[in-house]
Amino acid sequence: MRALWLEDRTLSLREIDLPTPPPGEVLVRVLAAGICNTDIELTRGYYPFAGVPGHEFVGEVDGRRVVGEINAVCHRCDPCRAGRTTHCDNRTVLGIIKRNGAFAEYLSLPRENLHEVPDSVPTEEAVFVEPLAAALEIQQQVRISPDDRVLVVGRGKLGSLIAQTLALTGCSLSVVGRGDATPPARSFDVAVECSGDPAGFATARAAVRPRGTLVMKSTYAGDLTFNASALVVDEITLVGSRCGPFAPAIALLAQRQVDVRPLLHATYALGDAIAAFEHAQRPGVRKVLVRNA
Amino acid sequence: MRALWLEDRTLSLREIDLPTPPPGEVLVRVLAAGICNTDIELTRGYYPFAGVPGHEFVGEVDGRRVVGEINAVCHRCDPCRAGRTTHCDNRTVLGIIKRNGAFAEYLSLPRENLHEVPDSVPTEEAVFVEPLAAALEIQQQVRISPDDRVLVVGRGKLGSLIAQTLALTGCSLSVVGRGDATPPARSFDVAVECSGDPAGFATARAAVRPRGTLVMKSTYAGDLTFNASALVVDEITLVGSRCGPFAPAIALLAQRQVDVRPLLHATYALGDAIAAFEHAQRPGVRKVLVRNA
Repeated sequence: MRALWLEDRTLSLREIDLPTPPPGEVLVRVLAAGICNTDIELTRGYYPFAGVPGHEFVGEVDGRRVVGEINAVCHRCDPCRAGRTTHCDNRTVLGIIKRNGAFAEYLSLPRENLHEVPDSVPTEEAVFVEPLAAALEIQQQVRISPDDRVLVVGRGKLGSLIAQTLALTGCSLSVVGRGDATPPARSFDVAVECSGDPAGFATARAAVRPRGTLVMKSTYAGDLTFNASALVVDEITLVGSRCGPFAPAIALLAQRQVDVRPLLHATYALGDAIAAFEHAQRPGVRKVLVRNA
Repeated sequence: MRALWLEDRTLSLREIDLPTPPPGEVLVRVLAAGICNTDIELTRGYYPFAGVPGHEFVGEVDGRRVVGEINAVCHRCDPCRAGRTTHCDNRTVLGIIKRNGAFAEYLSLPRENLHEVPDSVPTEEAVFVEPLAAALEIQQQVRISPDDRVLVVGRGKLGSLIAQTLALTGCSLSVVGRGDATPPARSFDVAVECSGDPAGFATARAAVRPRGTLVMKSTYAGDLTFNASALVVDEITLVGSRCGPFAPAIALLAQRQVDVRPLLHATYALGDAIAAFEHAQRPGVRKVLVRNA
């Protein structure tokens, strides 16, 4: 089959063997896949992945459209048995860790990872289920109430999904992007850093009030430096946040409580996936999709 | 009165005016004061304080022994009105921020900050109320249950108080100090960093499990650098922790549930306070007290 291949930070189109699903897994025909900032970070060496990238997808199995959770887990290790399956010690992660991903004609995933897409949700919107679930993870970790003043730092794709899901809590919500006026210092109960930029982290850190919570949603290549004493003195809580629940993400799209259509920017055929990656990295570009014919 | 004075990172003994308490404050005769790592960090420039250092003390007012909360607050700003008085925007902090401290014959504090010391608690033990309250702050912020595996990184004075208070929760507790064997990686539900050393932070970070909590209890001079992506991927929660509740700290000492006697190392007269600071900085030295005659 045709696939986009990443190796030594270089993308190429290749013909590779069709996946042969092991027991418990199924072959999924990929309909469309979205380019995520994590994919772009992978091409910059954020994690030494070699293989087919891509983890936001809609596929087809037995004539039904599906989306898929990206962590394939063992169910036997301590984290799995404690219910933290997304932190499985032996996990592979679609298009990120030891598992070929979605920029290909087919992929293989455990059947348990798949969720059917309701007929009312178009394929190009269902591609957003995975990042929308990641946005919802914040509310699994931090209780947000209508009394809370919440700041989202980052106006990108993920920032938009996060802002839309946080708005549903009834909180007082502000969003700041690069070049916007600096938000008031020490004023927000919760700040969410999803700019992927150390300057965004600094903005979020300055904006959060003492005893407030700073949620870190972006993966970065490289280290962050911060004033640890100030974190102690202000008793700040810093929360790393990753993959989230698929079922409520699908429900929000089906109920049209989140609108992802303004985030769609361009669609490329799989054969043009390298051009799609170049496009996705241009300033101001939002979600770029790669579709199979 | 005689006082120890810190200015431009240099300690000296001086004669200064007796404090004149403003309305709401009282004059406290200092009986004994303890040297804290924060005091030592102040002499190294952690915070540009000029004045009398010292914030762990036992004093006497109207013939009664008292200890005192160190944050003098306005009760009018947003943090105060939200109940977060230790984060008052306008606070002064005994011996740390814009308020002369306890290495002197007398100090002034708001009457509301004072707590009477029960007769059963000797003065040299009551000096530990302030750091013991700080140790208890951890349990105000993080729920610790008997099922939790908890690691304390740091075998210093604060580390001992933290370990003793955490042990009372019934959790499975490990303590690691410099030179000890490395604790097992990704194994602890909660790790508390109180070594004050970036190497201790790295030890705590490596030991905490995915979705675990890393409590930062030490103030450092200088910045910390960490891998932000790993924090996101492992969904770690980092919690800065500072001052805590005095009443339960006093109760634990009165009920002898915490034993601070092994932490007492040496006692100096106020006139020898500079020698006391030198002593307190030697390796392996625990609490050094400064007493008035």
